[in-house]
Amino acid sequence: MNKIKVVQIGMGPLGIKIGQFISQRNSLETVGAVDKNPELIGKRLADLHEDLSDAVSISENLTEVLDEVRPDVAVLTTVSDMERITPQIEEIVKAGIPVVSTCEELSYPWDCAPELSARIDKLAIEMNTAVVGTGVNPGFLMDSLPAFLTSVCQHVEKVTINRYQNAAYRRGPFQRKIGAGLSLDAFEQRKTEGTLRHVGLTESMQFVAAKLGWKLDATEDVIAPVVASEDVHTESMDIKKGDAMGVCQVGKGWLNGEEKITLTFQAAVGEPESYDEVIIQGTPNIKSRIDGGVNGDVATCAITINSIARILEAKPGLRTMGDIPLTSYFE
Amino acid sequence: MNKIKVVQIGMGPLGIKIGQFISQRNSLETVGAVDKNPELIGKRLADLHEDLSDAVSISENLTEVLDEVRPDVAVLTTVSDMERITPQIEEIVKAGIPVVSTCEELSYPWDCAPELSARIDKLAIEMNTAVVGTGVNPGFLMDSLPAFLTSVCQHVEKVTINRYQNAAYRRGPFQRKIGAGLSLDAFEQRKTEGTLRHVGLTESMQFVAAKLGWKLDATEDVIAPVVASEDVHTESMDIKKGDAMGVCQVGKGWLNGEEKITLTFQAAVGEPESYDEVIIQGTPNIKSRIDGGVNGDVATCAITINSIARILEAKPGLRTMGDIPLTSYFE
Repeated sequence: MNKIKVVQIGMGPLGIKIGQFISQRNSLETVGAVDKNPELIGKRLADLHEDLSDAVSISENLTEVLDEVRPDVAVLTTVSDMERITPQIEEIVKAGIPVVSTCEELSYPWDCAPELSARIDKLAIEMNTAVVGTGVNPGFLMDSLPAFLTSVCQHVEKVTINRYQNAAYRRGPFQRKIGAGLSLDAFEQRKTEGTLRHVGLTESMQFVAAKLGWKLDATEDVIAPVVASEDVHTESMDIKKGDAMGVCQVGKGWLNGEEKITLTFQAAVGEPESYDEVIIQGTPNIKSRIDGGVNGDVATCAITINSIARILEAKPGLRTMGDIPLTSYFE
Repeated sequence: MNKIKVVQIGMGPLGIKIGQFISQRNSLETVGAVDKNPELIGKRLADLHEDLSDAVSISENLTEVLDEVRPDVAVLTTVSDMERITPQIEEIVKAGIPVVSTCEELSYPWDCAPELSARIDKLAIEMNTAVVGTGVNPGFLMDSLPAFLTSVCQHVEKVTINRYQNAAYRRGPFQRKIGAGLSLDAFEQRKTEGTLRHVGLTESMQFVAAKLGWKLDATEDVIAPVVASEDVHTESMDIKKGDAMGVCQVGKGWLNGEEKITLTFQAAVGEPESYDEVIIQGTPNIKSRIDGGVNGDVATCAITINSIARILEAKPGLRTMGDIPLTSYFE
């Protein structure tokens, strides 16, 4: 069997990890790489990580790379917002190449960015190719998995999704990302700057609502610190009583004035348990739980790769994880 | 919005329950009904259950009904095996109508019935329509849900799926179906007759294997009694020590001599816990559990109805829950 040829756009930490994962799969190979970072242009992928190809160099010119290597699919791991990702997607789709992206807002962009979504959709249909945004969250744990679990329900009254993570054993950058160890003032400042925010909670609610046929009146997405009630000591950091141990972000979606969707994403150093949970109040009630939770770094790279086979079979247009054929690991 | 028009074929207990569920949905209506049972022919659906339409009568002539009411979709709840369901499907597909069926062997028929599968697939493609087999199990708990959970894995070593049900609170017919209260000799006899078997374990293994790209060398499907270690008293029956409390059915699938898939379906009166569990050994490990389990009666009817919207959007051909767009409850 011929390998599926992938061009990767965005060779930051996520792109590198996806490149490693691709190199472990018999059915896939990275045949081109693009990044705008002057420090990366011209480097061989093998210079970034020993698992990666020494035959592929990083180019800054996307269209040139696509013309040259004619990949089967593009994996786009650059930015999180629709405004900046749209022209990148358009450049790829114009070459007739399908796109799998980790762009969070692309996971369900129809409500937050209807015009850009329609533009991508129209172009993809014209070019007979498909585009999807995926990842572990958004893309799976708080949207496509809960939606799929409702398949066995005759009625759904309310959907509650909880993702709790103990960050004590995660890397320092992750702990800093969630504001662990910050004073509450510093936490507020990071929150105002927008650098503490998990992107995608609103998109996840809109994904679930769309699948269930609910037209939400309103959504909210609120960020608060998880405050240490006593001093916390971990291998990688100490946190003083009263400072932030991490972040709690809650999304709520209302239908006809009733709160129908509640998503809680809490990541903190010293969080007692890590788990991912879906609670469906309905007929029947369903409570599904993944003890220990799902490791976000591995899972996002894996689901991105696992979506490649499905995007090749998907209907042309801007798709979501809710309307491409069921993804799974594949060998 | 126009309602989706459904013809139901098979008005036994499952067909009646699906009819009730359809009547509760704003987006669906049953516009025709077919059954070969002489006791049912000519009866109004409302004669079978008060929730059902008094405007629809049961006909024995499928093609006539399809011609007359021109439904959007047919829901087929007649038999469990490919041999007998195939001509029924062909009759519907020849009329250009998509089919959703609870036929267990249709959930993944490609390995067990390759010729019949190819025949249905070819005809459905010619007629530009789609066919899918679904249900809670097979169709969801032991195949499409576990396959979807592997989406977040970079590697899968082994898949173990457990469905345990305490039948103490289920109806008498269900308790008898699982052999509760039988002597071990009587259990053996029912097993030999084939009336104790849960149909679909092999299909579920082949579904998972196909999604993961595994070509299994062999599968087995073994049925044994769950034996009472002491006298058991329940509201609906008493079971003597040494008699059967229920059934344990184990499916195993091997790849290159290694046991890679293990499914256990155990239903017994007095089973300590009811739950549905998926354990994926891989990168990362995933252990997902639904405490209390999923009620099979409600869930099979619900997923059948929930698949209707998706079969209308599916690619033409013989499809599975693994290659139609993600199902979910919809209002």
